[in-house]
Amino acid sequence: MKIGFIGLGRMGSGIAMNLLKAGHDLVVYNRTPGKTKALVSQGARAATDVADACRGDVVITMLADDAAVEGVTFGDKGVLASLRPGAIHISMSTISVALSERLAATHAKAGWRYVAAPVFGRPEAAAAGKLFIVAGGEPDVVEVCTPLLGAIGQSVFRVGAEPQLANLVKLSGNFLTASVIEALGEAMALVGKAGIDRREYLAFLTSTLFAAPVYKTYGGLIAEEHFEPAQFAAPLGFKDIRLAIAAAEGYGVPMPLASLLHDRFVRLLAQGGNELDWSAIGELAAKDAVANFA
Amino acid sequence: MKIGFIGLGRMGSGIAMNLLKAGHDLVVYNRTPGKTKALVSQGARAATDVADACRGDVVITMLADDAAVEGVTFGDKGVLASLRPGAIHISMSTISVALSERLAATHAKAGWRYVAAPVFGRPEAAAAGKLFIVAGGEPDVVEVCTPLLGAIGQSVFRVGAEPQLANLVKLSGNFLTASVIEALGEAMALVGKAGIDRREYLAFLTSTLFAAPVYKTYGGLIAEEHFEPAQFAAPLGFKDIRLAIAAAEGYGVPMPLASLLHDRFVRLLAQGGNELDWSAIGELAAKDAVANFA
Amino acid sequence: MKIGFIGLGRMGSGIAMNLLKAGHDLVVYNRTPGKTKALVSQGARAATDVADACRGDVVITMLADDAAVEGVTFGDKGVLASLRPGAIHISMSTISVALSERLAATHAKAGWRYVAAPVFGRPEAAAAGKLFIVAGGEPDVVEVCTPLLGAIGQSVFRVGAEPQLANLVKLSGNFLTASVIEALGEAMALVGKAGIDRREYLAFLTSTLFAAPVYKTYGGLIAEEHFEPAQFAAPLGFKDIRLAIAAAEGYGVPMPLASLLHDRFVRLLAQGGNELDWSAIGELAAKDAVANFA
Amino acid sequence: MKIGFIGLGRMGSGIAMNLLKAGHDLVVYNRTPGKTKALVSQGARAATDVADACRGDVVITMLADDAAVEGVTFGDKGVLASLRPGAIHISMSTISVALSERLAATHAKAGWRYVAAPVFGRPEAAAAGKLFIVAGGEPDVVEVCTPLLGAIGQSVFRVGAEPQLANLVKLSGNFLTASVIEALGEAMALVGKAGIDRREYLAFLTSTLFAAPVYKTYGGLIAEEHFEPAQFAAPLGFKDIRLAIAAAEGYGVPMPLASLLHDRFVRLLAQGGNELDWSAIGELAAKDAVANFA
Repeated sequence: MKIGFIGLGRMGSGIAMNLLKAGHDLVVYNRTPGKTKALVSQGARAATDVADACRGDVVITMLADDAAVEGVTFGDKGVLASLRPGAIHISMSTISVALSERLAATHAKAGWRYVAAPVFGRPEAAAAGKLFIVAGGEPDVVEVCTPLLGAIGQSVFRVGAEPQLANLVKLSGNFLTASVIEALGEAMALVGKAGIDRREYLAFLTSTLFAAPVYKTYGGLIAEEHFEPAQFAAPLGFKDIRLAIAAAEGYGVPMPLASLLHDRFVRLLAQGGNELDWSAIGELAAKDAVANFA
Repeated sequence: MKIGFIGLGRMGSGIAMNLLKAGHDLVVYNRTPGKTKALVSQGARAATDVADACRGDVVITMLADDAAVEGVTFGDKGVLASLRPGAIHISMSTISVALSERLAATHAKAGWRYVAAPVFGRPEAAAAGKLFIVAGGEPDVVEVCTPLLGAIGQSVFRVGAEPQLANLVKLSGNFLTASVIEALGEAMALVGKAGIDRREYLAFLTSTLFAAPVYKTYGGLIAEEHFEPAQFAAPLGFKDIRLAIAAAEGYGVPMPLASLLHDRFVRLLAQGGNELDWSAIGELAAKDAVANFA
Repeated sequence: MKIGFIGLGRMGSGIAMNLLKAGHDLVVYNRTPGKTKALVSQGARAATDVADACRGDVVITMLADDAAVEGVTFGDKGVLASLRPGAIHISMSTISVALSERLAATHAKAGWRYVAAPVFGRPEAAAAGKLFIVAGGEPDVVEVCTPLLGAIGQSVFRVGAEPQLANLVKLSGNFLTASVIEALGEAMALVGKAGIDRREYLAFLTSTLFAAPVYKTYGGLIAEEHFEPAQFAAPLGFKDIRLAIAAAEGYGVPMPLASLLHDRFVRLLAQGGNELDWSAIGELAAKDAVANFA
Repeated sequence: MKIGFIGLGRMGSGIAMNLLKAGHDLVVYNRTPGKTKALVSQGARAATDVADACRGDVVITMLADDAAVEGVTFGDKGVLASLRPGAIHISMSTISVALSERLAATHAKAGWRYVAAPVFGRPEAAAAGKLFIVAGGEPDVVEVCTPLLGAIGQSVFRVGAEPQLANLVKLSGNFLTASVIEALGEAMALVGKAGIDRREYLAFLTSTLFAAPVYKTYGGLIAEEHFEPAQFAAPLGFKDIRLAIAAAEGYGVPMPLASLLHDRFVRLLAQGGNELDWSAIGELAAKDAVANFA
């Protein structure tokens, strides 16, 4: 397929490379132009602007947040104004449910097809084509995208015709991960203050019913207090918890644990943690347990 | 070894049977006598009372709560009054850190040896000899117990000389599990109200970074709203969260997520959930999202 | 002074009438025209549109929320486009800190003067000219408004040159009130379930250190479970808590009690409480204490 | 009446002096003997021991906590063993609902009469005879105590025949006060960080619907960060919140705000605030808003 790819950050670059390897005809675009080099050297073409990336069968956007997606989508030379008849816009960014719903509506009105397909997995998984993908959109449109999604992920969860449900699943996943960070943070603050070795504790836990990557990865970061450099920066984690809460407000679901996480992030950022990994909220319980009230 | 075993509930029976299979000389006791039959038919001897179970090298207690352990330990014919010189009391019950500390002190004063060895795992794991054991006590005493523990579990996490640390690890583990229940409960309330199939959602999650037994087991119960019969009843879950909070007060560690879980259990029990599985707290978020304010 | 007054709801009508009584020359506007009658019969003139209300020395807006204020302020025939040189816009609405900051900036850019002056007090206090006013803006501009504010309130708290600080104080006040509602709700759920008469309990409390209108008013509503008709509807209360949290995010202040209140409102609205008074969140603790888990 | 008075701390001394002034025949006892001097100089007799204070018509106990009350009540020479037929034990201490219930039962069994009469008010109010009293017990017994209670307080709230309900009301009152401290702490952290003067803010608030002693007193302490010396020390505040939560568990009422306060106290004490006034929990929100994550 002829594919335009917009957004070549750590995730986007890996995904685009796998599409290229799978034999697709790729036009790539990034606001900062240097990022296209590696892909061009492998056969991709660098687009001159957003519109130039929208002339194929599919355009994929993989950007940081709502503002970035709005920036490339709307406006005179944006995606909406540039797609060709029959084209599909696949939005892989972790954005709000509300924006995804708005994208679905504006694309439908313009006669374009829209699929939300956010992903679970870190840059290494993107590079390895091992992402987990959640896809929302009209079944026949998602069907058309299947080979393409197959080139970048190891499985696809289809949530149905409403694209924004895919974004909801993604946000709920980040909520679950942050919940693990908080729970491990509190547990390690407790056993650590009692004198138990936090690394041995984690090794034990992850040999039992907690034998999952989410415990190993984040437990390790907390046990080692290893929050720099950030794999996923605290402001991004905060953004996703806020989006989860906004979605929960929209659907009418009170989530007290999400609110607890919200307050942890507000505090972490207020206390100067902007550059830290989001797992640094797992350090706050331990801080509250140390005598320092001067 | 000559072992006395007190407490033949679902966990204790499985553990005792494995000790018997491993060739140990077993004397068993249960307050309700019928429970000794199966073990006696396999070669164990039924003790006439607690004291009668305390004449070997080791006595193991596996009981429901602090009160039960105090009941068999203290008093004229209790464990403390009945052990022989050099004997070891292994306490496998999930009890408070404070009681475990008191047991350590009273046993030391009486000249006995004491090991706290609570376990992770459900009755099937106990029957299969596949428990995960946390052991606290003097290293040489724990060393003596090693073959015995090896007969009932697949691994032993040694936390050091203070027996109560083993109980702390056990309580922290139940806190982590309850945290997963709450997080999944909120996430499923959200995606479920939005129209996503909860079972498919769970199947997807547990194929990703949440691929752990704790998500599969409890996620399944919540997705199916399958809270009866209880595998682990809500009052027991509440007890453990209260003990975790009491321990956290003792060590001086604020745990806001533990407090949230505390309130969930108070509510579940107040609303009539005494007979339900503790995973029923995972249903409360969904209840809060349904119009019923009459 | 020649004053335009936009927004004749229950609060605005009372305020406008007091300005009229104080001898000011009043032009009034309301989206729904019927509301101007009483004021016109007392000597005010009905404006034909928003612009028509902006030709005096001062225009006052008293509207329901951010959207309403944006609606009359921006646009071709809005306040910003219609004020005369030297005119002052006094915004009395309970709006977000962010919008107030934006109003300050846009008015400054247009050459107009802007004062934020939200009020504490209910419709009866507005009618009686007994409101408490918080005023934010350049000191000399606020000084010009003093006689006017004196006609409608019993005191003015001047927060300084940044108008949005006045809005922040207003939002913090509604947060404090909602905190009282929650605290009384929990306390009454407890003593009520124990068998104590809630009205007598409240009468006692408000004779002690809790002798304040906020306890008498809201305690009475909760004790009587008297949530209809709403004096201040739950969606408005929710709006203000959300704005308080948004402001706290902006300034970097974690407010866990505000988050608790947020979750109470999400639940109240999800459960069907849209028409109820915001004090109905004070009923939720009691609901959680009643056996109904079917 | 012939009255024994046990417990001459800051509250007890003031109360005892007022009983003396009202013409009662007083025998006073304190574990630390020096405290009896002032009362003896005004006509009281110093008891030689607890039993010696129990020979009149009434014995009043005013002690720090459950342990102190248990210490003087039970045992060979305690209150229970020393009262005369027909005597009344009035317990004014802030104790647990559970202990009060146990005292009611043990006194009834021994044939004595028991009234729980905890008080609201600080040492100055005790000295001035201006306390607010909550009385629980058989109506005729409380009736007998009326003149006596009238000598020490300005009003009596009678909660009925179950003495422990009086203790419940007292604990709920301290919960409400701590709620105000937390709410003010969060509000002041917010407006303070935004640059508003906290003293002026408080002065404004307490001229509006928050015009109550609880806001003035605690708001002043927080605004001034004046937490030493403690008027009511943090460990005592923590004790009362724990007792409120324990009572709420007993009656089956989830109180999320009480849990939030619980966590605040655990943190304050863990961080070294043992000597501070309990209002110091109102400083924690501000601490969370300051950059210090090193």
